[in-house]
Amino acid sequence: MKKTDYKVALLGFGTVGSAVARILSDGSRNHLRVTHVCNRNVEQKRVEWLSEGVTWTDDIEVVLESDVDIVIELIGGEEPATDWIRRSLRKGKSVVTANKQVIARYGAELEFIAQEEKQWLRYEAAVAGGIPVIQGLRDGLSGDRLFRILGILNGTCNYILTRMESDQVSFEKALGEAQELGYAEADPTADIDGLDAQAKLAILTAAGLGESVLVDSIPLRTIRSIEAVDFIYAKRLGATIRQVSRAERNEDNQVVASVQPMLVPTSSTLAQVGGSRNMVVVEGESGGETAFAGLGAGGLPTAVAVVSDLESITRGTSEVSGILTKSAPREVVGEFVSPHYIRFVISDRPGIIAGLAGVFSRHGVNVDSILQEPGWSKKELPFVMTLEACDTASVREGLKESELFDFHQRPPLWMPVLA
Amino acid sequence: MKKTDYKVALLGFGTVGSAVARILSDGSRNHLRVTHVCNRNVEQKRVEWLSEGVTWTDDIEVVLESDVDIVIELIGGEEPATDWIRRSLRKGKSVVTANKQVIARYGAELEFIAQEEKQWLRYEAAVAGGIPVIQGLRDGLSGDRLFRILGILNGTCNYILTRMESDQVSFEKALGEAQELGYAEADPTADIDGLDAQAKLAILTAAGLGESVLVDSIPLRTIRSIEAVDFIYAKRLGATIRQVSRAERNEDNQVVASVQPMLVPTSSTLAQVGGSRNMVVVEGESGGETAFAGLGAGGLPTAVAVVSDLESITRGTSEVSGILTKSAPREVVGEFVSPHYIRFVISDRPGIIAGLAGVFSRHGVNVDSILQEPGWSKKELPFVMTLEACDTASVREGLKESELFDFHQRPPLWMPVLA
Repeated sequence: MKKTDYKVALLGFGTVGSAVARILSDGSRNHLRVTHVCNRNVEQKRVEWLSEGVTWTDDIEVVLESDVDIVIELIGGEEPATDWIRRSLRKGKSVVTANKQVIARYGAELEFIAQEEKQWLRYEAAVAGGIPVIQGLRDGLSGDRLFRILGILNGTCNYILTRMESDQVSFEKALGEAQELGYAEADPTADIDGLDAQAKLAILTAAGLGESVLVDSIPLRTIRSIEAVDFIYAKRLGATIRQVSRAERNEDNQVVASVQPMLVPTSSTLAQVGGSRNMVVVEGESGGETAFAGLGAGGLPTAVAVVSDLESITRGTSEVSGILTKSAPREVVGEFVSPHYIRFVISDRPGIIAGLAGVFSRHGVNVDSILQEPGWSKKELPFVMTLEACDTASVREGLKESELFDFHQRPPLWMPVLA
Repeated sequence: MKKTDYKVALLGFGTVGSAVARILSDGSRNHLRVTHVCNRNVEQKRVEWLSEGVTWTDDIEVVLESDVDIVIELIGGEEPATDWIRRSLRKGKSVVTANKQVIARYGAELEFIAQEEKQWLRYEAAVAGGIPVIQGLRDGLSGDRLFRILGILNGTCNYILTRMESDQVSFEKALGEAQELGYAEADPTADIDGLDAQAKLAILTAAGLGESVLVDSIPLRTIRSIEAVDFIYAKRLGATIRQVSRAERNEDNQVVASVQPMLVPTSSTLAQVGGSRNMVVVEGESGGETAFAGLGAGGLPTAVAVVSDLESITRGTSEVSGILTKSAPREVVGEFVSPHYIRFVISDRPGIIAGLAGVFSRHGVNVDSILQEPGWSKKELPFVMTLEACDTASVREGLKESELFDFHQRPPLWMPVLA
């Protein structure tokens, strides 16, 4: 498919959809023409500025039966999005999507269909908004063998955590602000608890490590339990806190992956990402550490990724064969070995540290340091214990056993420390 | 050209060439096979580990007359490299090169030949080593309209400047260390004085802004004049010093560009790049700021870029049409408007600041601040004047006029401040 005029259909005309239409209407891309907009209650979506001759419809069949060349899926959610993408491909249309859940879960099947139909399926916008990281990993670094991916993939979490860091506000206050600014949804679960980053990490793992993984097997831990005091202790440890998405290949050729809050050294690349920005850092056997950073969300940045995908389809520069179809998806391993941070909130009395150290010692874990900032009430005293490198299971077991102590005022918070 | 077996010739078997051969010999890329190595005194280069059946030669004609599919040019310098690339393309071979001077100066002509011959010319390795930034700008961000490029494109300069910053060593000492570590050449002129970054910036300007520029029209200023004391004053101003390559489109649709040391705020993305690493930050109308960072030099990282280019040729994912051929090359404008930093070294007496402020005032330039650290000899006293935003010409004129004062102990150093 190499032509001079491509008819484009937009499925979904919200923030990203209208931003795509804006970019395509600026007069500089006359080879790409929006001919169809499909949306529920489409009459409420109709705008004057989009060129004449556009068919506005709420019926997907109108798009599927049309002579549209490329369908842009921006409705989100698993269904009917997956079905619409599948049927678009079967109707001989290429598809560009920003839908991380669909690609993470059904990408392999959809790429297979795209190959069969000799169409393209592109999804740069599904991960890290406007940052061209999928292409960077699959093409730009294809000469390397990557073994690790670290990402700040959720702008909402990063906004909340950097707000808590800079002004010592509570999680609830930072979340409220993020919601007011439109960075967080009314129901922030998908962001805060890691489901959003989980899907993105699964896609990056395919693009960068060449491994299909079962999305739901990537373990998640929420950032809800982080308190302002954790940033005080993090700072004393020369670190800050980020929601880190991590995937790597271990010595047994398994994929180890997780999405969770981590203590990140202030000097590390990941700590440099402030506000709602995203970053992906990969490590390769030959090329060392390479980083990609930019705006990970928002209508216009995401639209840039969509339009770049459109452009590469029209240039015929996309490879037809996919990246998700290389291997059958498999479960990831969730157990990284790393130092750990544990913050307890206790009612103080003698012997607490000895008791806790004894527990962890029995699980083969050495305590590295004890930190206790002055000025807190003895009745609700936060203090921090850091553990030398150990596996997550040992930390969990030690914490489980330490539940028997009666000094806890709140459940302890633990996080791995990025080495 | 889409086949299962590609014969590859290496022109030049130094650090990068042998790293490419290593990667291609690791057993995971059997569709790419080194069949020819061409180098002066080739007998001294011959290695055992490169697969049998390789033709080792010092005669380019042997390569040109062979059935090699892809030629990798790694000999550096303008000639005979340009001639060899041209003739390889004319012989129906695709070319991958890491040669920034050839691409910056003759890239448009060579891309034109590649198009005529229906071959590929790829040069990701010419800029920023292993960081896939050319592809990122031309493809990954093609959906945006970029208007600014900022780069740390020379690892040697960045190593020297970050060494001076962290340990307050002199320029000469930092340069000597860089030479010992192999980061700087015996003749460091091309790095230190900006010629290396100049060629890279010209290529990025074509890839990112879509503008061919005359390489030699990009103004250069050396980092040789930076002294350890400048980092003390930079720190007081919340900044550090970097060799910054900058290109942007101005309101008159001209390309403004330069390579020079600049004062960079510590909080800015560019200031985060330490040691010999490289970074490219672009700004787009829709996507905002996007950054690419990684190892900008060295055998293996550069080899990753070369092999990634090879892979994309074999996948047929490269666009045949070039990026350098879009417009006739034109001169850049060297005059940015920005705040400026000037460091004087004077023999102290009353009235100096008034005199200097008067001079700049006559050129329409306002002094923003005067900084003078204690503890220096009055006879050789460094102090700093910062100027409010003004054009470079006014700074030069003011400095020219101030030469008439007899208090100077050394010529003043001036740098723009990155806003």
